[in-house]
Amino acid sequence: MYQLFYYPRNASWAPHMLLEEIDTVFELILVDRKSEQQKSPEYLKLNPTGRIPTLADNDQIITESAAICLHLCEKHPESNLLPEIGDPDRARFFQWLFYLTTTLQPELMLYFYPDRHTTLPDTANAIASAQEARITDMFAFVDQSLAGKNFLVGDHISVCDFFLFMLSHWASELTRPPLAFEHLGRYLRTLAQRPAIRRACETEGTPLTAYQ
Amino acid sequence: MYQLFYYPRNASWAPHMLLEEIDTVFELILVDRKSEQQKSPEYLKLNPTGRIPTLADNDQIITESAAICLHLCEKHPESNLLPEIGDPDRARFFQWLFYLTTTLQPELMLYFYPDRHTTLPDTANAIASAQEARITDMFAFVDQSLAGKNFLVGDHISVCDFFLFMLSHWASELTRPPLAFEHLGRYLRTLAQRPAIRRACETEGTPLTAYQ
Repeated sequence: MYQLFYYPRNASWAPHMLLEEIDTVFELILVDRKSEQQKSPEYLKLNPTGRIPTLADNDQIITESAAICLHLCEKHPESNLLPEIGDPDRARFFQWLFYLTTTLQPELMLYFYPDRHTTLPDTANAIASAQEARITDMFAFVDQSLAGKNFLVGDHISVCDFFLFMLSHWASELTRPPLAFEHLGRYLRTLAQRPAIRRACETEGTPLTAYQ
Repeated sequence: MYQLFYYPRNASWAPHMLLEEIDTVFELILVDRKSEQQKSPEYLKLNPTGRIPTLADNDQIITESAAICLHLCEKHPESNLLPEIGDPDRARFFQWLFYLTTTLQPELMLYFYPDRHTTLPDTANAIASAQEARITDMFAFVDQSLAGKNFLVGDHISVCDFFLFMLSHWASELTRPPLAFEHLGRYLRTLAQRPAIRRACETEGTPLTAYQ
């Protein structure tokens, strides 16, 4: 039995969608960020980085959103959410997963929380402005990569698609949001019809009307 | 035959050390950052992100440093540089790999290139100052995790150790550098004696005298 420690639309969202896609039994446990529960002594025992999500797979505790996703894929190989060893798509899968999690995601975090990254909080807006331009360029690159494709890797949904859906939604308020890109917009609207994604969004209280 | 497109001490360093550890045949191809060769039309055809490294595994082109490392480990399972599927250390391996590449590495990049992330270049120093404090806290967390241990995961070297060695070296000029931490310092000095690391550093022209 899995327990996912989550907060709506946080980095727990990708593993949550994945659990719905795998269609396994799991329990969601809310970590109330509003009262900083992710920094509570109880949660820090589970996850010393004080960040969301954490997965409990019975006695095994796993942190880092992408590590959780890979663990779930390998426990449920029948779900086919990660190309197998030897499949030429496997290197492309990891390439995209690392691009999304080591580049796009940290650049988005800097856009959202610029004040944490400067000793001059009055200049945080200048960081957000620079980040908006950088992130827009990155979505343009992703958009071009999706021309004629329904999934980032091969012809089957993978963990990468759940990450890209999550990161794209985070960027909804940009001047040029992901939905405004030709290929990326089409891709996101199609993904938003997927039952696993709809179920996870409904549970988290996230309307998908913008994707209709 | 592998070809690694590299620049000394760039993110190509971890795959370079790994290739030495695997002890396979490979060719290093210098991408001259001094003349911005990573933005040249030839290189962008290989790697449209314009970043270093890229690996050519015969006809297969792979980008993203960690994706390259995973590909090499899976091609050479006898090297035992990544815990196998089913090994309880496997989730810990991915947890550390993602912590290092999605948190520590981007936070270091922001420290080194703050001017890219603000529209007020005069305030870049305030970003670097905030980053130094954040990164020092992160190394303190890594340090505590290494108490009584020679490797980040289990009792065998893995890709995570090559990444941590690389990122720690990048941070050598911090006020409290990684070598000044008790456990992390001991760990780095031991790693620096490893023949694969010594060979890669010698080829790249990186002296290891600070680790003696």
